[in-house]
Amino acid sequence: MKLAMYDAGAGPRAGVIVGDDVLDAGVSAPVIELIADWDRARPLIEANLAGARAIPSTDVRLLAPIARPGKIFAIGLNYADHIAESAMETPAHQVWFTKAVTSVNGPYDPVLIARAAPFVDYEAEMVVVIGKRAKHVARADAAAYIFGYCVGNDVTERMWQHRTTQWSLGKSFDTHAPFGPWITTADDVADPHALAIECRVNGELRQSSNTSHLVFDVFAQIEHLSAAMTLEPGDVIFTGTPAGVGAAMDPRQFLKAGDVVRCNVEGLGYIENTLAAEA
Amino acid sequence: MKLAMYDAGAGPRAGVIVGDDVLDAGVSAPVIELIADWDRARPLIEANLAGARAIPSTDVRLLAPIARPGKIFAIGLNYADHIAESAMETPAHQVWFTKAVTSVNGPYDPVLIARAAPFVDYEAEMVVVIGKRAKHVARADAAAYIFGYCVGNDVTERMWQHRTTQWSLGKSFDTHAPFGPWITTADDVADPHALAIECRVNGELRQSSNTSHLVFDVFAQIEHLSAAMTLEPGDVIFTGTPAGVGAAMDPRQFLKAGDVVRCNVEGLGYIENTLAAEA
Repeated sequence: MKLAMYDAGAGPRAGVIVGDDVLDAGVSAPVIELIADWDRARPLIEANLAGARAIPSTDVRLLAPIARPGKIFAIGLNYADHIAESAMETPAHQVWFTKAVTSVNGPYDPVLIARAAPFVDYEAEMVVVIGKRAKHVARADAAAYIFGYCVGNDVTERMWQHRTTQWSLGKSFDTHAPFGPWITTADDVADPHALAIECRVNGELRQSSNTSHLVFDVFAQIEHLSAAMTLEPGDVIFTGTPAGVGAAMDPRQFLKAGDVVRCNVEGLGYIENTLAAEA
Repeated sequence: MKLAMYDAGAGPRAGVIVGDDVLDAGVSAPVIELIADWDRARPLIEANLAGARAIPSTDVRLLAPIARPGKIFAIGLNYADHIAESAMETPAHQVWFTKAVTSVNGPYDPVLIARAAPFVDYEAEMVVVIGKRAKHVARADAAAYIFGYCVGNDVTERMWQHRTTQWSLGKSFDTHAPFGPWITTADDVADPHALAIECRVNGELRQSSNTSHLVFDVFAQIEHLSAAMTLEPGDVIFTGTPAGVGAAMDPRQFLKAGDVVRCNVEGLGYIENTLAAEA
């Protein structure tokens, strides 16, 4: 199932994507609450779909599928090619940082270039959405805790990322965590580690890899995070970006107002955000 | 006003601390919702206090005043003496990391030593609670966005903090963000930059400084954070720790099960947490 939040003019609603249409899920709860009670919610939604009107998804605004996650964690240096272009070594341990929940953005909404933070870059990523409370989960059991997958852009301001040792501020600007366009439930993803991933800027292919090249796969990521903290339904994990970021180009390229960034992951759809100067 | 969340056996309630007693605030909303609507909530609470029964605060369980902040940001290397003991240089820019919201803990609840993460250390800190949405706030205007102040312990697992470049995981273990015991509203804090701050382990004084020694004061912190992101009512900021952490002692000392850590900030009360091994 492809689960979305959409707005057809009457505020945010949960919906299901079927082909090119969105069908209202027939429930008042947002997706994050449906996830937390999915065993009950899923049959209810499936029953509601039979009578739901199909609206072309181009006629609605798709929103971030989870407007306010409890946590957003993101892993760095997790594709071998991106590690090489960053002139770093493959880390012995998973390198985690966070994106502030206020940086969440819709799949097709503008990404803002903030004042005094002009070095904005893209990082296409596969995103994992947690389905169940997870603590001390072994890698072999981790799949059961994943609700689904989507596409994200771990937008990064490189000056703020690198002028101290800690990356989280440079990863947390408002609008810098677009993801979506919907969540594909895990049962509809045959193998999350065999998906092509790409990023295009104004149509030019900048990143092109495959999730098979993850250094630490998503199950290992859940094992590691859940050894430290409780993961909760609706928590969001950005699983790493491959080579091709603007900061690693020669000469370095950063995004400017008007640029259109499209990230896609095979089978999960795409998100497309236009850069704009902060008002 | 000293605003707390407490449980007298009937679940979490907002209360006001008066002397050694807690008085129920007479509202069903938690503190974070009161903060977001404080201009209306404060006179309502003040009116309710007249008829409220005083309960000795020793007869109730005081909870974290904000159970689930939107964000917890914490600044590193922000007291000159702590920078020296860490063998670091005074940073040119503020160094920020995050604590996961799932690490929030009550002011008198156990702090857990997780499996495979035994190097647990204390960091006494003054904590700021944001009162109003803040974006691009100048340092000179920052005071108006602060709801109040409390005491926190930025509990840190040193191995997880330092085995990669990024600190946030080692700062985010469950139970590792105790704070409270209540929020003292900003109008009752004459000068947040003139408060003694101390930490004792099993009665032994380990940290003793004053918030006058902050490298970046709390107003500068709000200016910096709000240049990147929207701060929201109930967001929590750990403002830095002074010298005396266990990792800087010779030989290094880490906390073990049974240790009692008391952090206090002048005028804001104290929090006291006992270490325990994770079950």
